[in-house]
Amino acid sequence: MGRRLAVLAGRGPLPAQVIGAARARGLEVFVLAFPGETDPDLVRELPHQWVPLGAVGRAIDALHAARAEDVVLIGPVRRPALSSLKLDRRGIQLLARLGWRGRGDDRLLQLLVEELETEGFRVVGADSLIDDAIAPAGLMTAAAPDPAAQRDITLGIEVAGRLGDLDIGQAVVVQQGLVLGVEAAEGTDQLLARCAALRRDGPGGVLVKLKKPQQERRADLPTIGPDTVRRAAEAGMAGIAVHAGNCLIIERAEVIAAADHAGLFVIGVAGR
Amino acid sequence: MGRRLAVLAGRGPLPAQVIGAARARGLEVFVLAFPGETDPDLVRELPHQWVPLGAVGRAIDALHAARAEDVVLIGPVRRPALSSLKLDRRGIQLLARLGWRGRGDDRLLQLLVEELETEGFRVVGADSLIDDAIAPAGLMTAAAPDPAAQRDITLGIEVAGRLGDLDIGQAVVVQQGLVLGVEAAEGTDQLLARCAALRRDGPGGVLVKLKKPQQERRADLPTIGPDTVRRAAEAGMAGIAVHAGNCLIIERAEVIAAADHAGLFVIGVAGR
Repeated sequence: MGRRLAVLAGRGPLPAQVIGAARARGLEVFVLAFPGETDPDLVRELPHQWVPLGAVGRAIDALHAARAEDVVLIGPVRRPALSSLKLDRRGIQLLARLGWRGRGDDRLLQLLVEELETEGFRVVGADSLIDDAIAPAGLMTAAAPDPAAQRDITLGIEVAGRLGDLDIGQAVVVQQGLVLGVEAAEGTDQLLARCAALRRDGPGGVLVKLKKPQQERRADLPTIGPDTVRRAAEAGMAGIAVHAGNCLIIERAEVIAAADHAGLFVIGVAGR
Repeated sequence: MGRRLAVLAGRGPLPAQVIGAARARGLEVFVLAFPGETDPDLVRELPHQWVPLGAVGRAIDALHAARAEDVVLIGPVRRPALSSLKLDRRGIQLLARLGWRGRGDDRLLQLLVEELETEGFRVVGADSLIDDAIAPAGLMTAAAPDPAAQRDITLGIEVAGRLGDLDIGQAVVVQQGLVLGVEAAEGTDQLLARCAALRRDGPGGVLVKLKKPQQERRADLPTIGPDTVRRAAEAGMAGIAVHAGNCLIIERAEVIAAADHAGLFVIGVAGR
């Protein structure tokens, strides 16, 4: 029998994939679900418990009760307003340690991972469960970046790196040497949608998506999927550069097929 | 008789205000107008010449022919695609000097100002012509930032400063310690519109707008006006912090009245 895995499940398609992959490996899966975040259909057939986001103590109790050994955090969670967080005592302690400055997502997730490890759980990255999920280095598509796109990628890496230092966003859109858009709280889909209107005539436009330097690898990795490719194509991009070894590619075969169909490149690049 | 002033007129309400203020001071005004950018109604009654954006040599010839002494650049201009620029020889030389990296607006405007000064023109800032246009230091409104808003302003200044180093944007929206949005090519109006949807429940939200460190003061200053205040109010912001001494406030009395009506603060702050 495999180890007992607890999945802290956020939104989107990733939790289902991780759960499927874990069960296929023979792991026993318990799901910690968050009201307003986790899809109720996901947990119906599985051992699970619902816990409000701010109830850190209750969440840890639930993990102990389920005798979880490994823990994976997967799927994005909306950052609620402090005022609407149902904080328990442990939640308050955690937020107090967070302090005011640097209240970006990285630090919060890092503290949460530390808290879970203090409790004796082993926090594992989703990429250790989903095969082929991590972006490889180098070109994955038939199309390749031309010299202009290569320069845009270089600039995008520089900008994303500096933003990442501030725990802001993971994505930047660059076209012909001009930064069209920078991601903060809105997410990559919205970034691409507005850059469609901002892009200039002529070729190019590159989406660059990198892990932030301080980003807790096990709790949160930048992610692209087939939908990202479709939206990038709609926005007139020439291609997508992802952080090799530090970015999840969901349904990689479909991502590459969609990119090849649209004539986009997808390439794995090093960070700064 | 006053000096002969050439106005390089971009979009929006600012060129008309600068021209009105200059004529009220007895300056002779000549307008250099750009197809697709300058409002044709603006120049109809004034000595003017239309020149495509990339025709730098023709623009300089026109300024000499008009015997301009002072030159003011006012109103934003859309950055056209390189491929659609009707570059003359001088335009090509200027772009070649710009090089590939650092192709943000700052460096371009800086080179343009240098080029104009080499030709013997004196480039003056719009703020030297419009009275009371430059943001003062300190609070301008009845409402004042509370401690949470003050922390958001501090974080916004840090973020805007780092972005400015990269010649990206001038504006940042921060709420409860989280950077909701960062401006790149889309402009402040769009930034505010999307942050309306991104903001969390509860109080606060601050628009911070600063001059970029390298920004050519005489050619391009961050600007707010009554419309900015209305959009900030619609987006649920608590207030606006502008760069004291380095930000234009258009129709300041109306800005303050609109902010007081909506209960927003407007404050002039120092940069990093």
